[in-house]
Amino acid sequence: MARKTSRPAWIAGAALIGFAVAFAAQADEYAQYRDFFEPLPAMPPLPAENSMNQARIDLGRMLFFEPRISASGVISCATCHNPALGYTDRIPRAVGHDGQIGERNTPTVLNSGFFGAQFWDGRAATLEEQALGPIEAEVEMAMPLEQALERITEFDIYVERFHAAFPGDDDPVHADNVALALAAFQRTLNTPNSPIDRWLFGDDGAMTEAQKRGMVAFVERGCLACHAGPAFTDSQFHNIQTPGSTDVGRFLVTGEEQDRHAFKTPTLRNVALTYPYFNNGEVAALDQAIVVMGREMLGVELEGQELEDLVAFMHALTGEIPDFPVPALP
Amino acid sequence: MARKTSRPAWIAGAALIGFAVAFAAQADEYAQYRDFFEPLPAMPPLPAENSMNQARIDLGRMLFFEPRISASGVISCATCHNPALGYTDRIPRAVGHDGQIGERNTPTVLNSGFFGAQFWDGRAATLEEQALGPIEAEVEMAMPLEQALERITEFDIYVERFHAAFPGDDDPVHADNVALALAAFQRTLNTPNSPIDRWLFGDDGAMTEAQKRGMVAFVERGCLACHAGPAFTDSQFHNIQTPGSTDVGRFLVTGEEQDRHAFKTPTLRNVALTYPYFNNGEVAALDQAIVVMGREMLGVELEGQELEDLVAFMHALTGEIPDFPVPALP
Repeated sequence: MARKTSRPAWIAGAALIGFAVAFAAQADEYAQYRDFFEPLPAMPPLPAENSMNQARIDLGRMLFFEPRISASGVISCATCHNPALGYTDRIPRAVGHDGQIGERNTPTVLNSGFFGAQFWDGRAATLEEQALGPIEAEVEMAMPLEQALERITEFDIYVERFHAAFPGDDDPVHADNVALALAAFQRTLNTPNSPIDRWLFGDDGAMTEAQKRGMVAFVERGCLACHAGPAFTDSQFHNIQTPGSTDVGRFLVTGEEQDRHAFKTPTLRNVALTYPYFNNGEVAALDQAIVVMGREMLGVELEGQELEDLVAFMHALTGEIPDFPVPALP
Repeated sequence: MARKTSRPAWIAGAALIGFAVAFAAQADEYAQYRDFFEPLPAMPPLPAENSMNQARIDLGRMLFFEPRISASGVISCATCHNPALGYTDRIPRAVGHDGQIGERNTPTVLNSGFFGAQFWDGRAATLEEQALGPIEAEVEMAMPLEQALERITEFDIYVERFHAAFPGDDDPVHADNVALALAAFQRTLNTPNSPIDRWLFGDDGAMTEAQKRGMVAFVERGCLACHAGPAFTDSQFHNIQTPGSTDVGRFLVTGEEQDRHAFKTPTLRNVALTYPYFNNGEVAALDQAIVVMGREMLGVELEGQELEDLVAFMHALTGEIPDFPVPALP
């Protein structure tokens, strides 16, 4: 059970609505369920403070793949946020500098521009605030920012690219701009055109019957209470006891008792690709993760056909993964 | 100085020829130098034992980017043979499992299908023989092959892909086929259309004047004695004392005194991208590497305009880097 119930009060209401529309679904082929979901917009919200020009995106892409801003010289953002693995690492907990194993499962950066908070505990509000943390973290890239900047400055092409990306900045090679460029690039890592997106845009055949039944269960059971909006996350923090975890989560950030064992709702977009699950990556299988969520957050045992349908629906959230060649670094 | 001179006797001859054709070059615009070089063929020699079908190449690409066949779960072939970094790592010596630092500089896999020997010490003759070594090596991926195969077998898609790649093999998920697939993929990692290739095919403007002068110096000085053929390597072993190295090189393989401190001639294709240089990666700058080669192998001090021209010529060996999206792994 969840250590503290933090389900919004309207879950019960949503469940009732879900029941009502489920009943009607057979008549109108699920169409009214479209009101519960939002297709992924072409772009996440773009902050006025980080104007997203192509030069900035390109520089961010280079920095994302750049291993020499780590102490070992071989760990880049793309090591744990691996493009081959859904921009995560598909191991329970991140492995970083000198093989050290971190405390938490690597979250995907796909669609992260749509998140209202970053990291499992929300210790950063924005991608810009998030970007530099892993470079300096001792168990990740373990590189003091000043040294990282020195390495970058060795390459004329990087200096040129910073000038192109930040034309108003006379001395643009500094940590704030590294964060801005990385954030600008990450805002392009979106996964449109998943089956549910295509279905929301009107293509009735884009989801299978099982996926549509799973969608109904998802609404009925109240999963939508937290996994809502274009990225299927409310970006809020909810108390949960995941298998094997002793992590106090957001309590480390706020010191508030109510945040003990609270974690940010993870996106469900591409969830079939971003296993293993939960803050400690202890659950490898998607169906098992759904069972845990039912128990911990909803107080129900999900099983049988309904569980299978929910798994099918989760697969309907897999979109088009960004597809570009690895940048050539200097 | 080289600990043992291993220059072929015909270097002196080549130098004389070089002098003669250099003298004539002003009249015919370097054209006769075309006889000294070979453009990169579209494909390296393909062994009959490893039929190169598309399914095998695609499987090899997946395995090349697959970090879960390492003990940590985060090191793949592409970690050290990084596509962003000329399929090498651009650090002096390879960093592997738990941050251990290896003895030698990571060689590029670009054009490695053209090499007649693999590894700095030639302990593997072919790409097939080479492929499995780094997976098991304790300082690299540190993964017993049986465990690597168990991890692969967990994924239905891999099992399917092995069947597609090895249609004659009833039980195709085994180490030999991992090696065949990786080798097949690596034989596609070639870099055609460099300036010298385009010049060899007849485009007089493909190389700059400095590059052409550097080409003349390259022939005159006898560099071609070892850096010959389509990949600019004879795939032979030559004794050399590189700065800071105590590595006995090929002696470890053969136990023959004559092989003490002998290393395979590295390819010069894309040499501008594959810094730092030599078996221990101790020399970061291309011009300095050329100076060392002059001293150690040719007994000359290369400097001034000639050195600048040789550097320019090395840049003429940079080809088109393979350009494909990172594969999606299961």
